[in-house]
Amino acid sequence: MLAATYNGARNVRAAKVEDAKIRKPTDCVVRSTLTAICGSDLHTYHGANEKYQKGAGTPPVMGHEFVGVVEEAGPAVTLFKKGDRVTGAFKSSCGLCELCRRGYPSKCPNGEMLGLDTPGAQAEAVRVAFADFSLASVSDKVPDEHAIFAGDNLSTGMQAAAYGQVQPGDTVAVFGCGPVGLFAQQASLLHGASAVFAIDRSPERLELARQFGSTPINASSGDSLAQIRELTKGRGVDVAIEAVGLPQTIDDALASIRPFGMVSVVGLSEAETMQFGIRAAYLNGTRFAIGTCSVQNYIRAALNLMAEGRINAEPLCGTKMTLSSVAEGYERFDKDKSVFKVLLRP
Amino acid sequence: MLAATYNGARNVRAAKVEDAKIRKPTDCVVRSTLTAICGSDLHTYHGANEKYQKGAGTPPVMGHEFVGVVEEAGPAVTLFKKGDRVTGAFKSSCGLCELCRRGYPSKCPNGEMLGLDTPGAQAEAVRVAFADFSLASVSDKVPDEHAIFAGDNLSTGMQAAAYGQVQPGDTVAVFGCGPVGLFAQQASLLHGASAVFAIDRSPERLELARQFGSTPINASSGDSLAQIRELTKGRGVDVAIEAVGLPQTIDDALASIRPFGMVSVVGLSEAETMQFGIRAAYLNGTRFAIGTCSVQNYIRAALNLMAEGRINAEPLCGTKMTLSSVAEGYERFDKDKSVFKVLLRP
Amino acid sequence: MLAATYNGARNVRAAKVEDAKIRKPTDCVVRSTLTAICGSDLHTYHGANEKYQKGAGTPPVMGHEFVGVVEEAGPAVTLFKKGDRVTGAFKSSCGLCELCRRGYPSKCPNGEMLGLDTPGAQAEAVRVAFADFSLASVSDKVPDEHAIFAGDNLSTGMQAAAYGQVQPGDTVAVFGCGPVGLFAQQASLLHGASAVFAIDRSPERLELARQFGSTPINASSGDSLAQIRELTKGRGVDVAIEAVGLPQTIDDALASIRPFGMVSVVGLSEAETMQFGIRAAYLNGTRFAIGTCSVQNYIRAALNLMAEGRINAEPLCGTKMTLSSVAEGYERFDKDKSVFKVLLRP
Amino acid sequence: MLAATYNGARNVRAAKVEDAKIRKPTDCVVRSTLTAICGSDLHTYHGANEKYQKGAGTPPVMGHEFVGVVEEAGPAVTLFKKGDRVTGAFKSSCGLCELCRRGYPSKCPNGEMLGLDTPGAQAEAVRVAFADFSLASVSDKVPDEHAIFAGDNLSTGMQAAAYGQVQPGDTVAVFGCGPVGLFAQQASLLHGASAVFAIDRSPERLELARQFGSTPINASSGDSLAQIRELTKGRGVDVAIEAVGLPQTIDDALASIRPFGMVSVVGLSEAETMQFGIRAAYLNGTRFAIGTCSVQNYIRAALNLMAEGRINAEPLCGTKMTLSSVAEGYERFDKDKSVFKVLLRP
Repeated sequence: MLAATYNGARNVRAAKVEDAKIRKPTDCVVRSTLTAICGSDLHTYHGANEKYQKGAGTPPVMGHEFVGVVEEAGPAVTLFKKGDRVTGAFKSSCGLCELCRRGYPSKCPNGEMLGLDTPGAQAEAVRVAFADFSLASVSDKVPDEHAIFAGDNLSTGMQAAAYGQVQPGDTVAVFGCGPVGLFAQQASLLHGASAVFAIDRSPERLELARQFGSTPINASSGDSLAQIRELTKGRGVDVAIEAVGLPQTIDDALASIRPFGMVSVVGLSEAETMQFGIRAAYLNGTRFAIGTCSVQNYIRAALNLMAEGRINAEPLCGTKMTLSSVAEGYERFDKDKSVFKVLLRP
Repeated sequence: MLAATYNGARNVRAAKVEDAKIRKPTDCVVRSTLTAICGSDLHTYHGANEKYQKGAGTPPVMGHEFVGVVEEAGPAVTLFKKGDRVTGAFKSSCGLCELCRRGYPSKCPNGEMLGLDTPGAQAEAVRVAFADFSLASVSDKVPDEHAIFAGDNLSTGMQAAAYGQVQPGDTVAVFGCGPVGLFAQQASLLHGASAVFAIDRSPERLELARQFGSTPINASSGDSLAQIRELTKGRGVDVAIEAVGLPQTIDDALASIRPFGMVSVVGLSEAETMQFGIRAAYLNGTRFAIGTCSVQNYIRAALNLMAEGRINAEPLCGTKMTLSSVAEGYERFDKDKSVFKVLLRP
Repeated sequence: MLAATYNGARNVRAAKVEDAKIRKPTDCVVRSTLTAICGSDLHTYHGANEKYQKGAGTPPVMGHEFVGVVEEAGPAVTLFKKGDRVTGAFKSSCGLCELCRRGYPSKCPNGEMLGLDTPGAQAEAVRVAFADFSLASVSDKVPDEHAIFAGDNLSTGMQAAAYGQVQPGDTVAVFGCGPVGLFAQQASLLHGASAVFAIDRSPERLELARQFGSTPINASSGDSLAQIRELTKGRGVDVAIEAVGLPQTIDDALASIRPFGMVSVVGLSEAETMQFGIRAAYLNGTRFAIGTCSVQNYIRAALNLMAEGRINAEPLCGTKMTLSSVAEGYERFDKDKSVFKVLLRP
Repeated sequence: MLAATYNGARNVRAAKVEDAKIRKPTDCVVRSTLTAICGSDLHTYHGANEKYQKGAGTPPVMGHEFVGVVEEAGPAVTLFKKGDRVTGAFKSSCGLCELCRRGYPSKCPNGEMLGLDTPGAQAEAVRVAFADFSLASVSDKVPDEHAIFAGDNLSTGMQAAAYGQVQPGDTVAVFGCGPVGLFAQQASLLHGASAVFAIDRSPERLELARQFGSTPINASSGDSLAQIRELTKGRGVDVAIEAVGLPQTIDDALASIRPFGMVSVVGLSEAETMQFGIRAAYLNGTRFAIGTCSVQNYIRAALNLMAEGRINAEPLCGTKMTLSSVAEGYERFDKDKSVFKVLLRP
């Protein structure tokens, strides 16, 4: 089958690879009708994951976002059958271990990260482990171009707001207006935020934030913290969401909250450590949550909310290409920050 | 001062009464710029509260909804001063007792229900006890006609959704499309409901529900429970909110939920008891909350959400009259179910 | 194999039945080392479940409490293997459906109630469906006589306290001192209750309650509600747990709480309906939860707490017999209310 | 009156100061029957707070722990009157501001820290601001020597467990076995922890921890993290509580949790910043809460739990002296780590 293969840093290209096939009774093979490039794929593209992508094939198959149709369901799969329209989490989970039971499938020790632990989803077909837990049905009301967000970006934005414990009437600052940040803004409004402040440096992204109901703050035109303080009359926000993954913006998020406000970090930092103002955090009172999204907890609600028109993915749909031109897709996505998402039709 | 006085069942009229004045150091006197008739005032109008309205004056002064300006603040009041624009809870609370501390100011044994325990708010001025706890500031962004809802109907709708524990993606059935029901629908959407089903018999009210984003279900055109079951594919709703106060609709609410769904009742029943299907409730798994709104918990967020345009009170503003024609206001409100609210300008 | 068989009302006897065996790949067969008679088995013993016990075999095999060793694990079972020491929930659950995902496995439409939907556990061996979800490992620290409580009575007591939302410092009234009530008392103390009031009519049971740290209230020696009011200085308890299943005690539980206290009902009423004081519930502010225990949510913590000596099951171990004398076991359990539990060794 | 006065670093002595008196209508003056030295007083003793203690008098009066009897209640005080036995929070709070309303009285901008913002409690009498919010009644069941802990150490331990969200069956690691750490251990057990691991270097403190039901881990005899890992079979604890205030132990706490475990920090670090392993925190999934205790939220439950014998303060009562020998008290407390608490009888 055709797939996006990794051939060294900044060298991804479409090539024939071995067909996806069932390996365990709990697997499904899904024939993709749409796949996409995610911001986190760029880490791999830049060569940063070479030691982690052993399980992804030779050469490794990239990607973890897909919508498609079940082609074959393993004998132990009970929820899905050939022909079902589905999407899935970027990482599978067994559903049985203690962490799955406790609600943290993203930390399931048995799960497989698509494109690292197992061949990825930028391909004509993808094998999904523990399909009963890792896949979700997609209704006719949700087109492929929207459903593609449920298994990563949208669920991550929803977890950001959920971990931020946004309550009706709260003010929220979202640092970063990429797809995750924009969905976190929508999710914050869905939790009843009275106002959402969207911080970024790109006028295009800030304009999108504005359209989604956020108050844009351009970090290039002055101190964004000062602007947040002014907009909240010196009080700080109830909740700060960090969707960038830089020590500087995490620090800003920590500084932007009212006493005992909540900071929810969903951006993965490339830096190992940061200076943390432990005394200031104590004196202000700080609550903090950080970690990978447990997509399985949100994906059904995400699809449901898009089906009912309560979440709007349309403006994020971005650039549409074919899988065969994936090389160009990565190049453009890497260089041009105005590209939100590259959708690849197999 | 001029006030709406109770002179026996169905006999409310504007008359001169003793001026509102400070009685305790924690009181404020508020000069009203707008007052209104609430659905619950009709119980009093019908004569049902004669034994409870002893504290309201001779003759008793009616009403509990008001927006106005502080005319005098008692010496122990610290948050408000003469000239502040305010609204307040229908019942005051001391802020100090165990129930206030636990978050149930509506059950404060020291609080006073306006229009029953103390002269009401349908008057040129109203004395408010424990003003620091019972009043809230109103910003210029919120006109009187909207702010009037914060101290009762809107806060009650918000508590209905909060006690219903509505989560993003949930389906919600709201029984009743009066002001409380319509605000409960808006609040449910604000909690992230994917779909809200609004049940009523009035086409006008259902049309309003539709405009607010609910799916209307006319209980006159067939079995509303059957319609809910169909709309939820046989599953039932996650949350049912009862905003009518009849045993029959409470029973419907209980029957409308999925297993272990939540039923939130904010309608006060005139019936003392109802038959409760205890065995069915056990077998389905039922969670249930009922009681008077603790306005103090919601009033600031309510005003904030209206200021930011996230709650829309405009379509509920109803009929506008002067306080001097309050007799006619009660008559029309009592007879004509298409009147949502009667606003009285002093 | 030998099993307790139902042969009409009040006629249960040990008899040879078909061996338990794997029917689906997700099943396990467990060879019992201990099984027991539960209070809810008496409904069946009295003939009340004849229309529901079709799936339990011909004649139906009784019971749902067991501890044992896995004899055979179906090919799709991943957590358990031959030789593992286990106990299990009284009702199995698929782990995949929406209700399982939401945390309500007791309402799983695919699950099977032991002794009704499928042959019961009072037998030398029992087939357990969806074994990965329905079984739990038992450590060497917990003897059979204690582990036998994890799959029903103890988990039910834990859910009673959890649904009651008992907080550190709260006062709790537990109506009923059978095994579930006594475990609910221990669980309430484990949630930090400052005082637990135990209501029953049996001096022996009340003495046990006292040993577990509760304050006993003998309902035979006067008005138990008056005693609760006195012990709480007129305030009422924060949480009431009903572990009897009678309209009268549910009514008492509702009357025993402070404003907006919580009532958690785990007793299954034989009555279909009860008179519910809807107006009093509204005026006091009432929160209420009722339903079958989702054992799967508590069973691991239950076993863990017994292993660490934090829950004490020893005084409840009751009467020990052999499975072959099960007929006598039911007779004694039915007649003698001082028997807490009948343990049957196969 | 006699009071402990600060006269430069390591120079605290008993001296006559101006009598405590009512300054605002919401004040009370409390005649102390017992006062005490807290670990956090040592910061002041060492001279670290000279710039913050302007409000405490000339010379500044030390301390913030007291039990006593109301000598005079200001005219706006409603809950307390002359003769009432009380204790109070180390910091007062207005009860009216947004942060008080939201449940964070420790961050009340109007509150006063005893011994810094206002003369302290190590004196024959102390003025308490906002007495209705800042004081709590003490029942006869609780002796002075126990009640003295309610307004700081015990409430802080309770908040540590509450912010740690300890659930029945959880494992908890508490770093530090000073009074706060030991109370945090008791509070964790009160939340239902199945096992609490207590980490310290003092054999005496660890022995106390053991008596309270914790499993002691001596950090001097090897890698405490390795011991936690072994005791949890490699899994990590559900909750880590840091009650020391050192970057190293905060780091250990972060490293000790299972994926998405909770870290609750109540120790105030003297260091401004620490290196925070942001990437490891993301990859493991970390939830974190840090800040000063809002005593007002816990003090009543704390007193209640001691009255009912559910919290045991007796072993922490420490060294008893008279206020006149406070100089010696500070010296001993500063030098001898085996002294848990110095109680000063005025």
